[in-house]
Amino acid sequence: MTGMPSAATQVLRIVTGSWLNWLLIAAPLSLWLRWQSGVSIWVFATSAISLIPAAGLIGVATEHLARRAGPTLGGFLNATFGNAAELIIAIVALRAHHTAIVKASITGSIIGNLLLVFGLSCFVGGLRNGRQKFNRLSASSATVMLFLATVALVMPALVALISFGSLEAHPAVIDTLSFWSSIVLLGVYAAGLIFAFRSQRDPLRVDPGKAHGASLRAGPAIALLALATAFTAVEAEVLIGALEPAMHGLGMSELFAGVIVVALVGNAAEHYSAVTAASDNEMTLALEISVGSSAQIALMVAPVLVLFSFALGSPMSLVFNAFEITAIGLSVLAVALVSIDGESNWLEGLQLLGVYVILGIAFYLIPMK
Amino acid sequence: MTGMPSAATQVLRIVTGSWLNWLLIAAPLSLWLRWQSGVSIWVFATSAISLIPAAGLIGVATEHLARRAGPTLGGFLNATFGNAAELIIAIVALRAHHTAIVKASITGSIIGNLLLVFGLSCFVGGLRNGRQKFNRLSASSATVMLFLATVALVMPALVALISFGSLEAHPAVIDTLSFWSSIVLLGVYAAGLIFAFRSQRDPLRVDPGKAHGASLRAGPAIALLALATAFTAVEAEVLIGALEPAMHGLGMSELFAGVIVVALVGNAAEHYSAVTAASDNEMTLALEISVGSSAQIALMVAPVLVLFSFALGSPMSLVFNAFEITAIGLSVLAVALVSIDGESNWLEGLQLLGVYVILGIAFYLIPMK
Amino acid sequence: MTGMPSAATQVLRIVTGSWLNWLLIAAPLSLWLRWQSGVSIWVFATSAISLIPAAGLIGVATEHLARRAGPTLGGFLNATFGNAAELIIAIVALRAHHTAIVKASITGSIIGNLLLVFGLSCFVGGLRNGRQKFNRLSASSATVMLFLATVALVMPALVALISFGSLEAHPAVIDTLSFWSSIVLLGVYAAGLIFAFRSQRDPLRVDPGKAHGASLRAGPAIALLALATAFTAVEAEVLIGALEPAMHGLGMSELFAGVIVVALVGNAAEHYSAVTAASDNEMTLALEISVGSSAQIALMVAPVLVLFSFALGSPMSLVFNAFEITAIGLSVLAVALVSIDGESNWLEGLQLLGVYVILGIAFYLIPMK
Repeated sequence: MTGMPSAATQVLRIVTGSWLNWLLIAAPLSLWLRWQSGVSIWVFATSAISLIPAAGLIGVATEHLARRAGPTLGGFLNATFGNAAELIIAIVALRAHHTAIVKASITGSIIGNLLLVFGLSCFVGGLRNGRQKFNRLSASSATVMLFLATVALVMPALVALISFGSLEAHPAVIDTLSFWSSIVLLGVYAAGLIFAFRSQRDPLRVDPGKAHGASLRAGPAIALLALATAFTAVEAEVLIGALEPAMHGLGMSELFAGVIVVALVGNAAEHYSAVTAASDNEMTLALEISVGSSAQIALMVAPVLVLFSFALGSPMSLVFNAFEITAIGLSVLAVALVSIDGESNWLEGLQLLGVYVILGIAFYLIPMK
Repeated sequence: MTGMPSAATQVLRIVTGSWLNWLLIAAPLSLWLRWQSGVSIWVFATSAISLIPAAGLIGVATEHLARRAGPTLGGFLNATFGNAAELIIAIVALRAHHTAIVKASITGSIIGNLLLVFGLSCFVGGLRNGRQKFNRLSASSATVMLFLATVALVMPALVALISFGSLEAHPAVIDTLSFWSSIVLLGVYAAGLIFAFRSQRDPLRVDPGKAHGASLRAGPAIALLALATAFTAVEAEVLIGALEPAMHGLGMSELFAGVIVVALVGNAAEHYSAVTAASDNEMTLALEISVGSSAQIALMVAPVLVLFSFALGSPMSLVFNAFEITAIGLSVLAVALVSIDGESNWLEGLQLLGVYVILGIAFYLIPMK
Repeated sequence: MTGMPSAATQVLRIVTGSWLNWLLIAAPLSLWLRWQSGVSIWVFATSAISLIPAAGLIGVATEHLARRAGPTLGGFLNATFGNAAELIIAIVALRAHHTAIVKASITGSIIGNLLLVFGLSCFVGGLRNGRQKFNRLSASSATVMLFLATVALVMPALVALISFGSLEAHPAVIDTLSFWSSIVLLGVYAAGLIFAFRSQRDPLRVDPGKAHGASLRAGPAIALLALATAFTAVEAEVLIGALEPAMHGLGMSELFAGVIVVALVGNAAEHYSAVTAASDNEMTLALEISVGSSAQIALMVAPVLVLFSFALGSPMSLVFNAFEITAIGLSVLAVALVSIDGESNWLEGLQLLGVYVILGIAFYLIPMK
């Protein structure tokens, strides 16, 4: 019997194990293009492509680390690093004062995970496996969390609109409301983690996933995590830098770029895992990945970004525009209606995709300001 | 043993079989009145009355034809001709440039089927049979379809309102959005038909209804269908022509005329069948007729009318006014809340009727423009 | 064997039986303060405190009377006097022309019962008893009633906003709509009572509560009811009289004073009973007290106040402001989502409390007009 493979071999095996990771070669291409001819639509495209496997690798490294760490710390790690890629891209955009893009990408991540990821899971899974059942408790738990977040996102906009006559108004009172709403959201999110530890049941992710293959030891897992995170940070910087020429080149508004493009890039890994799970008839896992990820963005990523913007000195409020609020509200309701009976089929998946397409067309057609 | 009755006898037996068909004698009256004294409120009333049995006969003829055609083609026929009367009335109104009336009658058909027909079914059925159970899957399936349609109806109005400051604005972008949303709706509707054929289960109508009496042969059924359709087209022309004097005579706005009066006329047949089914304790059938018919109007009739208006050269957008959108959204939510537990009683029926009455009073009181 | 204790002893035993009733000594204090130094923030505080046990005593007296009266008349008494304290405070405020406060306290009672009372019940009950199950039928029945009421509250505001361009507009048509909507609501409420009598099952309160201790005879019960009602009326007068200085002293808007402060005072008794029931693992009872009370306010108290204002000659419309409508709509949806699966846990309770806190912060921050 041979010994354990070396740590480096293991990491390499993980990186080369998924065909998605071949997309990593877009990264040197993006850097070379930028160095050769400055920012352009091609720099945007290549950095966007390279971020897809990067987000996936952060996820894989976190999962390996979480398995080693035991359920309590592991759950915390999964919850914290589960959306690390989105968070990194958003922080880079925030520092470049692309506030509208950041908000749009939060919106896009929420509705994308709900309608596109979950919709595609129901559609693909339903075509392969017929009617699929899933754990209704997972669905209802995540839906309630999402609803709370929707309330937190609606109120600042409503106060701005009704008391000050416009969503553009930005008085101190809106920042105060955004700040305290973020604190409440983070508080509930923390309570959700405590709930998970006490009941050994994550309110957002019931099943931590079966261990596929051998686990990395802690050292290599941390190294992979650090590497993937650094890689993501660099490529996010490149992506955001090339945003302006890409938007002009493709005739996209900031809103469309954030809601559809940036959100798709940051969540590509979730798309892949959820649809794979659904196709293997593990619909509860698909639901937890998609709806749970959505709730994490609303309850953790969004408030962290608000607090971070306060620390930066240029507060980003939680005032989303009317399209974003409507899109989030409708998505939450759509998933609640589809998931409440604990069953899905391909037609329901197609209907969720239909909602996503109509929202996408609307976001594309909304005139630029 | 005597032979089969002749086709003409069979058709005659069907026409004279229901007391509702006695209302057909209002048709010659309406033509005579119009010829004698021009359009008037009486022409409106008599043509409206004659359309009630006409819509019913189209339904009966379609059902006979569908039974002969086998489940696949039959389901398609039922789905297509199920709302033929509404479609014909709307096309006539569209050609007479009554766009506001057409939209209002779409709204009215949706909320009428949800609140009035389903509400009355719960109420009457509940009074006779106590607590009634029904198939929750039928309910949830149709509700999700309706929700998708609601999204398609909300977004164009939202874009118009927020980007252009008013629902009256009518820029090209709104027409584009309406066009593509209609395509998506029809696509999902077509997928619904495919789903029905594959699973032998109509997502909107589970139970095709027991065959009451002998089926017509194909020839007589087609003849009856053609006759009833032609009759409906003529009387719809008379009805729409007499709309203006009727509105002035009764102090109704275009909105009220469309939402309440025209919608009631076009859906009277559904009212009758659904309430009869509920009274016979066949609550699943009543639900399918009412909620399914509502979904058909939103996913098939409305987009077909939009595409038809494009073909006519004067595009009708999917921009409904704020009252209509609110009414549709509230109706869908009300039915979702009532039907989600798979049970109904007369009090729930009364509550749905209460919602309808409040909406009706509001539509009546909204000032004319 | 000794005889029955005298009526006066029994009443005294009830009054001294709960520690809450010690708060009654705040009443003479409030009167003395007012007589000594005129209205002030201290008069407001002491009268508010004294109203908490007064509301509770009306409830206790009603329950004793209801037990004597048998199920039919008893159910009616409970339904009518269940929210007597809120009704009395609101009528006093209405006569003092504090219309905005009255509407705000209706809003506050509805959302307070839904989010704060039910949320605290889920939270405290869940911490003590783990996952708790409750009767889904009770939940769905009250939720549908609340939804109907929400429709009635939304439509007048929508008509005002869209047809007249502002919520401040107050044309006759809005009063007409408010009047008829109130009639519909009271009609459905009356039907709910009939439903309860026929099915021996109150649609809002399934379990009338076990009899704790001996019942008062009718005479003493009526005396206690009359006394507590008179007491409430006097202290309500003192409270409303001291409202202005309290609002200025604490920097509260009329909106915040009504939605949070007055609503808390009027519903303190419900808070106490519901949380106690949840803590004893009687979650169905807690749900009925909180959600049922909310529905009673929307379907009975609010329309009675509208009709009373018409009788006073200065009609109060059902036009709530946009914050109030949003808060009510979101609260109803939140409770529907939490209760639809027939289970609760402390995390869901915390989430409802989170929604309440965010709404509360928003109401506090909304600038005074």
